[in-house]
Amino acid sequence: MSKVGIIMGSTSDLPVMQEAVDILESFGIETEVDIVSAHRTPEKLFDYGKNAHTRGIQVIIAGAGGAAHLPGMIASLSPLPVIGVPIKSSNSIDGWDSVLSILQMPGGVPVATVALNGSKNAGILAAQIIGSADKNVLNKVLEYKEGLKEKVIEGAKNLKK
Amino acid sequence: MSKVGIIMGSTSDLPVMQEAVDILESFGIETEVDIVSAHRTPEKLFDYGKNAHTRGIQVIIAGAGGAAHLPGMIASLSPLPVIGVPIKSSNSIDGWDSVLSILQMPGGVPVATVALNGSKNAGILAAQIIGSADKNVLNKVLEYKEGLKEKVIEGAKNLKK
Amino acid sequence: MSKVGIIMGSTSDLPVMQEAVDILESFGIETEVDIVSAHRTPEKLFDYGKNAHTRGIQVIIAGAGGAAHLPGMIASLSPLPVIGVPIKSSNSIDGWDSVLSILQMPGGVPVATVALNGSKNAGILAAQIIGSADKNVLNKVLEYKEGLKEKVIEGAKNLKK
Amino acid sequence: MSKVGIIMGSTSDLPVMQEAVDILESFGIETEVDIVSAHRTPEKLFDYGKNAHTRGIQVIIAGAGGAAHLPGMIASLSPLPVIGVPIKSSNSIDGWDSVLSILQMPGGVPVATVALNGSKNAGILAAQIIGSADKNVLNKVLEYKEGLKEKVIEGAKNLKK
Amino acid sequence: MSKVGIIMGSTSDLPVMQEAVDILESFGIETEVDIVSAHRTPEKLFDYGKNAHTRGIQVIIAGAGGAAHLPGMIASLSPLPVIGVPIKSSNSIDGWDSVLSILQMPGGVPVATVALNGSKNAGILAAQIIGSADKNVLNKVLEYKEGLKEKVIEGAKNLKK
Amino acid sequence: MSKVGIIMGSTSDLPVMQEAVDILESFGIETEVDIVSAHRTPEKLFDYGKNAHTRGIQVIIAGAGGAAHLPGMIASLSPLPVIGVPIKSSNSIDGWDSVLSILQMPGGVPVATVALNGSKNAGILAAQIIGSADKNVLNKVLEYKEGLKEKVIEGAKNLKK
Amino acid sequence: MSKVGIIMGSTSDLPVMQEAVDILESFGIETEVDIVSAHRTPEKLFDYGKNAHTRGIQVIIAGAGGAAHLPGMIASLSPLPVIGVPIKSSNSIDGWDSVLSILQMPGGVPVATVALNGSKNAGILAAQIIGSADKNVLNKVLEYKEGLKEKVIEGAKNLKK
Amino acid sequence: MSKVGIIMGSTSDLPVMQEAVDILESFGIETEVDIVSAHRTPEKLFDYGKNAHTRGIQVIIAGAGGAAHLPGMIASLSPLPVIGVPIKSSNSIDGWDSVLSILQMPGGVPVATVALNGSKNAGILAAQIIGSADKNVLNKVLEYKEGLKEKVIEGAKNLKK
Repeated sequence: MSKVGIIMGSTSDLPVMQEAVDILESFGIETEVDIVSAHRTPEKLFDYGKNAHTRGIQVIIAGAGGAAHLPGMIASLSPLPVIGVPIKSSNSIDGWDSVLSILQMPGGVPVATVALNGSKNAGILAAQIIGSADKNVLNKVLEYKEGLKEKVIEGAKNLKK
Repeated sequence: MSKVGIIMGSTSDLPVMQEAVDILESFGIETEVDIVSAHRTPEKLFDYGKNAHTRGIQVIIAGAGGAAHLPGMIASLSPLPVIGVPIKSSNSIDGWDSVLSILQMPGGVPVATVALNGSKNAGILAAQIIGSADKNVLNKVLEYKEGLKEKVIEGAKNLKK
Repeated sequence: MSKVGIIMGSTSDLPVMQEAVDILESFGIETEVDIVSAHRTPEKLFDYGKNAHTRGIQVIIAGAGGAAHLPGMIASLSPLPVIGVPIKSSNSIDGWDSVLSILQMPGGVPVATVALNGSKNAGILAAQIIGSADKNVLNKVLEYKEGLKEKVIEGAKNLKK
Repeated sequence: MSKVGIIMGSTSDLPVMQEAVDILESFGIETEVDIVSAHRTPEKLFDYGKNAHTRGIQVIIAGAGGAAHLPGMIASLSPLPVIGVPIKSSNSIDGWDSVLSILQMPGGVPVATVALNGSKNAGILAAQIIGSADKNVLNKVLEYKEGLKEKVIEGAKNLKK
Repeated sequence: MSKVGIIMGSTSDLPVMQEAVDILESFGIETEVDIVSAHRTPEKLFDYGKNAHTRGIQVIIAGAGGAAHLPGMIASLSPLPVIGVPIKSSNSIDGWDSVLSILQMPGGVPVATVALNGSKNAGILAAQIIGSADKNVLNKVLEYKEGLKEKVIEGAKNLKK
Repeated sequence: MSKVGIIMGSTSDLPVMQEAVDILESFGIETEVDIVSAHRTPEKLFDYGKNAHTRGIQVIIAGAGGAAHLPGMIASLSPLPVIGVPIKSSNSIDGWDSVLSILQMPGGVPVATVALNGSKNAGILAAQIIGSADKNVLNKVLEYKEGLKEKVIEGAKNLKK
Repeated sequence: MSKVGIIMGSTSDLPVMQEAVDILESFGIETEVDIVSAHRTPEKLFDYGKNAHTRGIQVIIAGAGGAAHLPGMIASLSPLPVIGVPIKSSNSIDGWDSVLSILQMPGGVPVATVALNGSKNAGILAAQIIGSADKNVLNKVLEYKEGLKEKVIEGAKNLKK
Repeated sequence: MSKVGIIMGSTSDLPVMQEAVDILESFGIETEVDIVSAHRTPEKLFDYGKNAHTRGIQVIIAGAGGAAHLPGMIASLSPLPVIGVPIKSSNSIDGWDSVLSILQMPGGVPVATVALNGSKNAGILAAQIIGSADKNVLNKVLEYKEGLKEKVIEGAKNLKK
């Protein structure tokens, strides 16, 4: 069964990152949540990055703010696809530091970056990655997209009343 | 066998996007390259997005510059993971428009954004996505990372001489 | 009789976009409001863009925030003038993403972009476009400008008291 | 017959603005080109803005760079739709000043802003504005869009060879 | 006797601009406050700019926000030194538009720009300009600077207690 | 007779600052050019700032790039009006650092900031400051503005041929 | 015994700068706090910078906002390492002015810049500087880092419950 | 004897980082240069960070570009003061990513950031850090500052000729 590892630098990032957990659960995908700080627990960072793929994790979602090094360092250590969530934390300059220090990785070490605070989209992207080789999950993604459409069409109808 | 679809808005984006083709070939992953313009061939955009997953494509890489709508519109239409490559085209404001119009997707429709002109990393990320469910490709990614390391260590040695 | 189509990606954009409706009504120009999401209802986007000019609409106003693709995609599909309103939505980086992903359209597919949250100006611009071939509306624009002037002069008088 | 007024602050802006002239000519729309500087010829600015609509002009295209006041001041004086072209002139900070001082007009006085150096798109937008009340021009716009599509499809074919 | 003209685009700018009035009064310099909108009262703008120097005004302070054209247009029309105050109004993108559309004037037409919302400094600068040819005012500026110093030294003393 | 002090942090700034010297000479205003580095010659900075007004200088123009402290520190020390010229030096981040560290002075200590590399405008502004109390110079400024106008009108005429 | 000088431009900066005092006290390092304004007390600035190293101070921490010249001017005057804390004061443009006017010092005169409002980190950096030649303080830094790690691991444990 | 460790992510950073080596040699301070890539040699990063202080290094200078994680990760692992040099590498967005991902470190883990490409200043800062406890080096810093001053005064003299 598929599993997505969700990590963040601090418990203060949890409110943002919970959206990834919730959407993945709604797709029936198992998640494992942990606090791993690139700057405060470098040894744990190392262990996590080196071993995630050996214990059944298929995709890693990493959220961080400011000079956000967690997603990139995990991507340095793991062969798995790493999704980075830039967080607009209190010490961030309007989120620009979070975005740029996750997005602008050097050649050889990609991070799949999503929008600022876009942890829900990180969860959907993880599901799409799993779905790219798993028909069952792919169909759930198709259903989810259908649901998005219906909600907009409903909103349009209410507007006309 | 796995296949990655690589699309771009204009033949002028080809020099940047070729790096994705090359790195994927070096991983032994088949690619299919096409020109699809969100703004000039919207019908082709629609066909491509709606059908890519039905004809064996597992991951889509889309490159675009300026007000770059190709990656996001493909992500709107396809259930597959879509990797967006912001391109610093001649009509771009230092690349900021390309980056922001790919990265900042609304909730429900993620694009896995890589660095400005980072098409090589888009190719590696596509390989990692395939590798997340395919041991053979995962091992190639591990080997590739080993190769990166050796090149740096070689450089360090030469420096000391 | 002239008609302006006003669309937006989500009902949450309505408070901003209502200003366009109100000012157009004050010019006696008919409006038609709808929700069309580039990312959630791509089929509706297609229908809307392809057919608006065939059912009496003369100008389209499209509002969107973040990676705002609605105005540009409608401009891709329709031969009508499209006015884009960048919206500072909650998921936007201070509005920069909204502005750049609407403004920086590639050669061949213009969007007439107005200020961030400038939906009132979008309505006035639509009236000016209609007025460019309709003396009656042109005169209403001239009157409106006269009104703006008087209000400032009134304010200046009150200041001196 | 329709006529578009094209003005710019300095003859040094002509290479950029010529693209608007050329595309409008290709649509069979008459143009009238002039140099009007908001900062160096304020009286001419006044005359131009006050009278353009009385001598047959239907749309005004104004290009300027740096602290670009020409488009906004013309929009202040004329009831016609004014299209603003931000120019990346030598004294501009990467074009940001040009873009912001044209785009961010206050409520009541819109400028239809196009991309940085986007004078070709300004010409197309002017044609679309005229086309919104003139079937003949509307059809030319539709043909033009068809031509854009064919060029992309041609490029895609050549790529496959 | 010296006189400083203080103008702004809207009564909503008054809370910011009042600081210039107050500081100039504290230097014993006469002020004349008016509302002049570049975009809504262009005729008044013209009159003001053309005639200010003929009716005893020595320095003009002009405050505006967003696409702020008032200071630059006054500088275009008047031979007097014009001090521009960028205002962070509600329709401004964090003040960047206000700053750039006042600061980045083309060669030949300077505006003496002060900090965002820096209308107090605009008043002091006006006093310094008058003081450059008026010993009495120069001495008041020297006294004012002495006062600033004493206040800081007082603060430092209180800190140590 | 009037005198303008023109200082800069390094001889490498001379090509930019020479424009201020030239335009002031064309107005018949005496200039005195010197190299004063805030960071390398703080004692000279102090002497200059403290004494400029005692030896006949009426206006100071200070140019600097990067973390540009020269204009602000001179403004701290001198009661004279200080005009700051942000220079896009080789160590500058596209000029933003130069602009912001000159413009954003705290309350009490204004610097009259002109455009990036706008040393010609700094010279004209100095002339306007002197002209605000000197009819002769004021008339030269009026003549200069007339000359700007004629050049634009000449350019417009050539365009029509 | 080691001593760190902590200065700021205004008592309003004290809430931010107090964090540096507190963390240094927790390391057992003596601090000396003072108000020194580059722009309002230039003579005090001079005395402070010239003499700090002669009265036992080893490191200087200087905090300032807006066009922040205090850290750079102190670095110009003192041979000691100067740590600059950019402060997001009320007159700052989102902190960018504070950051750039401290960070972008010219060759020859470095300022060790920390994050926006990062005065706690300034204190830790001062301790590390002292620790680089003082084993006792170095060990305290090592202990402090151990404490950071334990707090994160504690947080991770609580999360799992 | 004092020793400064100078590391960078790639041999392509050497031309920039060489300036730090040269200036430190001119102060008579030993340097040790190595290539350590956070993203390509994470194990070497770990070893370096954990052990530098145990083998005689007193200060670490780390240069990196783009999403620059090397300085911050070394600061995470080492108790020594770490100086970060943001490099404007070819894959950087005008240097903003390099600056922000080094500067904006979270509370607890400072990096002493210098200007973009400011590796010479990094070397001087390292000397100042050593000089804060070493009179001999402090005096060399004082001499160096004297030399800067003389060069400026020389330049000013040549200007007057």
